[in-house]
Amino acid sequence: MKLISGSRNKAPYEYLDNDISNRRIETLVDGVFAIALTLLVLEIKPPHTDSEQKLIEILIALTPKLFAYFLSFIILGFLWFGHQTISHYVIRSDRTHIFLNLLFLMFIVLIPFSAALLGENLHHQSATRVYGINLLVAGLIQYLHWEYMSSRNRLIDPDLDRRIVRSVQKTFLIIPMLYGIGIAVSFMSISAGLILYALGTVIGVTKITAIFHQSHYHQV
Amino acid sequence: MKLISGSRNKAPYEYLDNDISNRRIETLVDGVFAIALTLLVLEIKPPHTDSEQKLIEILIALTPKLFAYFLSFIILGFLWFGHQTISHYVIRSDRTHIFLNLLFLMFIVLIPFSAALLGENLHHQSATRVYGINLLVAGLIQYLHWEYMSSRNRLIDPDLDRRIVRSVQKTFLIIPMLYGIGIAVSFMSISAGLILYALGTVIGVTKITAIFHQSHYHQV
Amino acid sequence: MKLISGSRNKAPYEYLDNDISNRRIETLVDGVFAIALTLLVLEIKPPHTDSEQKLIEILIALTPKLFAYFLSFIILGFLWFGHQTISHYVIRSDRTHIFLNLLFLMFIVLIPFSAALLGENLHHQSATRVYGINLLVAGLIQYLHWEYMSSRNRLIDPDLDRRIVRSVQKTFLIIPMLYGIGIAVSFMSISAGLILYALGTVIGVTKITAIFHQSHYHQV
Amino acid sequence: MKLISGSRNKAPYEYLDNDISNRRIETLVDGVFAIALTLLVLEIKPPHTDSEQKLIEILIALTPKLFAYFLSFIILGFLWFGHQTISHYVIRSDRTHIFLNLLFLMFIVLIPFSAALLGENLHHQSATRVYGINLLVAGLIQYLHWEYMSSRNRLIDPDLDRRIVRSVQKTFLIIPMLYGIGIAVSFMSISAGLILYALGTVIGVTKITAIFHQSHYHQV
Repeated sequence: MKLISGSRNKAPYEYLDNDISNRRIETLVDGVFAIALTLLVLEIKPPHTDSEQKLIEILIALTPKLFAYFLSFIILGFLWFGHQTISHYVIRSDRTHIFLNLLFLMFIVLIPFSAALLGENLHHQSATRVYGINLLVAGLIQYLHWEYMSSRNRLIDPDLDRRIVRSVQKTFLIIPMLYGIGIAVSFMSISAGLILYALGTVIGVTKITAIFHQSHYHQV
Repeated sequence: MKLISGSRNKAPYEYLDNDISNRRIETLVDGVFAIALTLLVLEIKPPHTDSEQKLIEILIALTPKLFAYFLSFIILGFLWFGHQTISHYVIRSDRTHIFLNLLFLMFIVLIPFSAALLGENLHHQSATRVYGINLLVAGLIQYLHWEYMSSRNRLIDPDLDRRIVRSVQKTFLIIPMLYGIGIAVSFMSISAGLILYALGTVIGVTKITAIFHQSHYHQV
Repeated sequence: MKLISGSRNKAPYEYLDNDISNRRIETLVDGVFAIALTLLVLEIKPPHTDSEQKLIEILIALTPKLFAYFLSFIILGFLWFGHQTISHYVIRSDRTHIFLNLLFLMFIVLIPFSAALLGENLHHQSATRVYGINLLVAGLIQYLHWEYMSSRNRLIDPDLDRRIVRSVQKTFLIIPMLYGIGIAVSFMSISAGLILYALGTVIGVTKITAIFHQSHYHQV
Repeated sequence: MKLISGSRNKAPYEYLDNDISNRRIETLVDGVFAIALTLLVLEIKPPHTDSEQKLIEILIALTPKLFAYFLSFIILGFLWFGHQTISHYVIRSDRTHIFLNLLFLMFIVLIPFSAALLGENLHHQSATRVYGINLLVAGLIQYLHWEYMSSRNRLIDPDLDRRIVRSVQKTFLIIPMLYGIGIAVSFMSISAGLILYALGTVIGVTKITAIFHQSHYHQV
């Protein structure tokens, strides 16, 4: 708030700006993830029926949609967790950082659509691939985002061990690669493809958070 | 933000991390609850009619949906209040803590679906039971979450009186038990089952907040 | 976060708790208002048409829904502003405070439903009255909430001038009274009733914020 | 929270108030933008089909809606970024500031409606113009908002260079002018009009953020 008062405050812009700008973009990111996670359930339309027997049948018929819901919740939840973990390394903010965040969100917000498409057409390979391509693009943006932030310590803490930077980089490359393999596999088996999407996200993000934890324990 | 700069900051990871990580997960939790609470109303579709008489009739016909709305708002509101109260005890954060929070949210987000199903089929036992099972799973996750956080003071304040820890634990076990009894009772009476769901939540969470208040008054 | 550590922190519970508890309830309140404001637009379904002429006609036909949107946005926006202004006086938190906030939100969340009903049936007195009753209940809860917080300085700053407390109280009583008059007037004229709802909210909340501003200017 | 306690706190109201009031309005703004961004995807209804061939065809048929989604996401994202950047200059808050924010949000929330109308009727000039008018009104409100905040340093930092104030002012006037040109151009070419809307927003906001960055680099 007091950023501009040159006479009173001589600290460099990026550092000061970080407190507010990163808080605002984080609020937007958390908000978008919270809404995307919650919109997933809107695709499961509750049936109205007059006979008790029929209700149970219809609930069973909702299984593909419930499956798409749980799958997408896990994937979105872990993507949020990965994004949040990485933000701990960021100590500066600039315009490209915010642009890349918005670009990432653009494909996060599409996931409820891809999930709904999947829930409607779980038996179709093309629905599985639309879902995979959505994840693949989001994953590649996250990889490029890390590249941007970490190269020559542009936005991250300069004291951060380069081995950590490289580990994170490698993991953020492996995640979209697993999505790509999932897309390829979906030509043979839809369920194998979907399992790879979920596994890729869970394993990748778990690795990211493990790197983060390790880096701290070593320092103490 | 300055977490990683080992040379400048030697405090243990978990403690420092708490400030940011818990704030982020709390923003997500509050966001998801706010959206889930608001989505409840989307299930009550306002009718369009040409005669004044008809509008009143249709409004009366909406009673089951309005009932499901108020019931679910109370339950979701209290579940949020319970979750928020417990977070006052938490002074550390780790990955399992965040995973369990996401798992809890996965079943919180399902409540608008279960509520809509209930509003459409208030006269069906199976809708009542789907609703109850949803609450039961959410309640059990919350119990396990507390177990995880409190056992050997993993994430909670070590100065916290063990009697308080046990009181909270017992209450978090009683809540899903009341949901279970509600499910059983719904085989005989749907309304008795639903009342038990609401009462279980309200009484349980009121107990949790009472424990919290008491623990503070004793210390002052 | 460090609330419970009796040995390290001896300040009274309510004061300390305020920082976190009020921040959390404010996040929930802001979130619910943000979502309710945004859901209003979901009721205006964009038509699909093949002829350019028809599109303009359909847009004109949407006028009642656009009117309901703008009316409700103004009312919800001002209700948020009033609620936010009042929260500046609050220095403590307790369970009843949070219960009353949740109860207030329960009727705030209903406003998108009442607005949609109004947009669908702008020509029906009963839709106007359902809307008015919704506002009336929300207004009465806000009045009771202020009563609870201010009586014997339960949650507000004890240094606050009692004349300010009484002015706020009077205004929070006038708002639902204007809603009541609006409901009565709607039996004669729907538009007069709706104008009274909006005017009641705008004038009432403007008065609340004027009291707040005045109280500060006097002190400086 | 401790604003009113005259005896303990003598600093001028506006300054103190800023911390809380601006945080609250920012939370509301971020929340509304997050929801508006996410609601955009709700307009793309996933089709259900029985044949694999048909699914691909339907996905291709969704192209106009996906186009409207990406266009609106970019526009809304940049409008948020512009609004957020400007808020760094603001060091005070008053009622008109909050009213103007709410008025701005009133037309931000309408964008998902305009976007859905556009997605349904991409081939109609009138849909393109409704979209443009929506942006135009939002742009003019933002211009007036800056006028209000900056004239005689009403709410902004008095140390802020007047040349910066005038640059921001000029840019906020150019943005709605570009929207106006876009509306005029849409009579000849719909796509040229839409491109002008997006370019106007992206170039305008990029300019706003460039001014902000520059002002800081000069000071260091």
